[in-house]
Amino acid sequence: MLKIATIGSHSALQILKGAKDEGFSTILISTQKQAKIYTELFPIADEVITLDSYTNFFDVEDYLISQEAVIVPHGSFVAYLDQAKHDLMRVKYFGNKDILKWESSRQKQMQWLQQAGLYLPKIFTDYREVDCPVIVKLYGAGGGQGYFVVTCKEQLEQEVAKRQLDLSQVLIQEYILGCPVYIHYFYSSILNRLEILSLDRRYETNVDGLGRLNHQTQAILQPEPSFVVIGNSPLVIRESLLADLYDMGQRVVAVSKEICPPRGLYGPFCLETIVTPDQKFYVIEISARIVAGTNLFIQGSPYAELLFSEPMSTGRRIARELKLALAANRLEEVV
Amino acid sequence: MLKIATIGSHSALQILKGAKDEGFSTILISTQKQAKIYTELFPIADEVITLDSYTNFFDVEDYLISQEAVIVPHGSFVAYLDQAKHDLMRVKYFGNKDILKWESSRQKQMQWLQQAGLYLPKIFTDYREVDCPVIVKLYGAGGGQGYFVVTCKEQLEQEVAKRQLDLSQVLIQEYILGCPVYIHYFYSSILNRLEILSLDRRYETNVDGLGRLNHQTQAILQPEPSFVVIGNSPLVIRESLLADLYDMGQRVVAVSKEICPPRGLYGPFCLETIVTPDQKFYVIEISARIVAGTNLFIQGSPYAELLFSEPMSTGRRIARELKLALAANRLEEVV
Amino acid sequence: MLKIATIGSHSALQILKGAKDEGFSTILISTQKQAKIYTELFPIADEVITLDSYTNFFDVEDYLISQEAVIVPHGSFVAYLDQAKHDLMRVKYFGNKDILKWESSRQKQMQWLQQAGLYLPKIFTDYREVDCPVIVKLYGAGGGQGYFVVTCKEQLEQEVAKRQLDLSQVLIQEYILGCPVYIHYFYSSILNRLEILSLDRRYETNVDGLGRLNHQTQAILQPEPSFVVIGNSPLVIRESLLADLYDMGQRVVAVSKEICPPRGLYGPFCLETIVTPDQKFYVIEISARIVAGTNLFIQGSPYAELLFSEPMSTGRRIARELKLALAANRLEEVV
Repeated sequence: MLKIATIGSHSALQILKGAKDEGFSTILISTQKQAKIYTELFPIADEVITLDSYTNFFDVEDYLISQEAVIVPHGSFVAYLDQAKHDLMRVKYFGNKDILKWESSRQKQMQWLQQAGLYLPKIFTDYREVDCPVIVKLYGAGGGQGYFVVTCKEQLEQEVAKRQLDLSQVLIQEYILGCPVYIHYFYSSILNRLEILSLDRRYETNVDGLGRLNHQTQAILQPEPSFVVIGNSPLVIRESLLADLYDMGQRVVAVSKEICPPRGLYGPFCLETIVTPDQKFYVIEISARIVAGTNLFIQGSPYAELLFSEPMSTGRRIARELKLALAANRLEEVV
Repeated sequence: MLKIATIGSHSALQILKGAKDEGFSTILISTQKQAKIYTELFPIADEVITLDSYTNFFDVEDYLISQEAVIVPHGSFVAYLDQAKHDLMRVKYFGNKDILKWESSRQKQMQWLQQAGLYLPKIFTDYREVDCPVIVKLYGAGGGQGYFVVTCKEQLEQEVAKRQLDLSQVLIQEYILGCPVYIHYFYSSILNRLEILSLDRRYETNVDGLGRLNHQTQAILQPEPSFVVIGNSPLVIRESLLADLYDMGQRVVAVSKEICPPRGLYGPFCLETIVTPDQKFYVIEISARIVAGTNLFIQGSPYAELLFSEPMSTGRRIARELKLALAANRLEEVV
Repeated sequence: MLKIATIGSHSALQILKGAKDEGFSTILISTQKQAKIYTELFPIADEVITLDSYTNFFDVEDYLISQEAVIVPHGSFVAYLDQAKHDLMRVKYFGNKDILKWESSRQKQMQWLQQAGLYLPKIFTDYREVDCPVIVKLYGAGGGQGYFVVTCKEQLEQEVAKRQLDLSQVLIQEYILGCPVYIHYFYSSILNRLEILSLDRRYETNVDGLGRLNHQTQAILQPEPSFVVIGNSPLVIRESLLADLYDMGQRVVAVSKEICPPRGLYGPFCLETIVTPDQKFYVIEISARIVAGTNLFIQGSPYAELLFSEPMSTGRRIARELKLALAANRLEEVV
């Protein structure tokens, strides 16, 4: 019998709980610092393996293989174990590793989304062409660290000088004024259907606390916004907009099969959007795997409730997909 | 056996799911554009009928009648099928159609709420009397489209000129500074009791994204707020305030029996309020039927949990009411 | 058999529901004004006793004792019945009354949290030493009433004069710019384990509505922020931060055993924090009992779901703890 394994961070609790609810045994690999989350606070994994550092991941790979473990990757997993390490990995892995190349390069990501016909903010490869407010994102920065907003090219130049930034290491993206909406999809290659399981918006410090200062106080304090993700809060979307969301997801999956043939993107993914007053969804990023906003829905969500007769988190949905694949004798299509 | 029918938008998924949970068959009527929400994404209706346009609704009315369908109306239903069309409708309908006259006229609506003794923002029928910040709402505008805020009469005049507005087609309402709270009531005429099932606040673009821009950036960009509803997020209210909420709802129901005798308002309704720092609930609008904010609670809500031993959405509560009416042989009181 | 009793406000509905789910009978003591919440709107208590005023609490104490009632205190309970009244109380009481001395004095509270090594905002006992933006909190003010923010000493002096404040009756606390996060802990002395059950952020009028006004409008209206709590909305936290949250809770419990030996703090408590962009949790307050934000989770929470196979609110967790204590014949350790 397969076991489900992941590393201790991001959405591991949800993945472990979902696996358990679907009848799988679980293995959690953690650093010493984080281990108590999984051994003391929420001791739900069947086995916890601690490492000094994730660079030692390969020390346990043979053991994982011997246990018939399937790795369920999440945002921290791909942050700690890069493309090169993914290429070396021999243990079973839920999801298409090739898609990582398309996700980890901002250019390729934008090409993918563009080909899918989605609304995208402008990307400035040459900062001198900036002609609108932009948000500057550091490559590889985890959770919004170091992001900043400027209103024009001149302010951008000042900030780049002040922060001593290497412009080749940043993404300069048109700042879209609107409301953030993160859409949690699941594409089941076994059932050949696209699901929308839930929605969230991020909770970012200090930018989500700024509005609590009035104009007079801000004029004195001149607060600098920052975009460090510390959590998430739940949303539902206007029902008539679900048709757009479904289209967007379908096109992303369809194009993924062209760029990463034959399997393309399957399992959970997320379109991170800003919705403008004309109800357009500008996609600022795609995550080609489970996102942390799904942690809100460990007990299920309003949308998942429509599809399943049980509380179905994204973590559980992954385990369910593995179960469906096993039952259909099609496991090799998803791992 | 009755079937439950509605049109495909707004809170149809919740209504369908609730009907199913209470054992009813369901019919969903949809335009072609939206149909895939109900046929592919969340295929939970027993039958989906597609129309080119809702103006063709009457083409299917005989069929609905033959199926013993009860229409459950929602915000989009009354937007697409106006008072005149409601008067022509012969199919069974959950709710009091007469109340629509009171809801669809801003003047009559304010008269109703005033008679119920609720706190109301001032309404300016003559724009020249404006002496405070106001929000200007376009009649018949769906989901907050075109709303704007001005701080004084002079600014109002400028905006009216700039936007080429017909002042007879707008509501000029005192802008109340506070926090939005939407209260989801259900008045059961069968059980003769008023319930509070849940609460939400709307998620409006771009006004709920504005606070993420600091003062310096706003000073440069001069963003115009807009109030287009794209979703909802959940809330609970301070427990001691529930007594006020209950009073408000009771008075609204009591007055409805005077203005629309004998049945008045029954089933779901919503008071859309702004709560000020002195904890007064200013009612900016009433919806005399299910509101989209209840979509958050397809799995039930903290308040519904206190009343029912099962997850009880507003959609399911409607179906439950029909079931109670049928069992008591009192169906003609509610349809 | 024990009964569970509380007074009608704050989180009483949750406590009653949780008690019922664990098989206890319940008694609710209410003022006339609030009684209908518990007799009409949510009639879930087995018995409701009404009082003219909570100053008459002792009139019913003998009856409560005769019923083997255990009081479950909440924020309103300790607001209505002060330390002196607590000292007189003979009825069984869940929680350590001695901890109230540490919680109700701002100085002692800060001493406790400091000893636990938590990040704390600076407290200015002499207003002349103010050298940063501060929030001024009135002692004993319920739910944020009268709080205000100033950016410097001079503005503080102006506000103090304008509001005619007695500086000995206020707390002057460094204003931390970040995002509010309220952490709902439960320390089980019976199981000897610390649990994190849920998280919320408060919904405060008008400060959580301010950001919906743009800069231009604020410049004209010059709105004064106020911090009156009217509700709560749900959150989850970045999973990697759970290790910090767990540490913080453990240290608070450990120090409580030193300052209130031998039992220290047990049962539910809450750390009310502001999270800064460097992901530090500044503790602005501790509540040594159930907080109202837990009302969001009457149906359980994402975190409680990981620990229990049933929906477990904090109110139910209290009842469960009493049940565990009874079963282990250790009731005297918790009441």
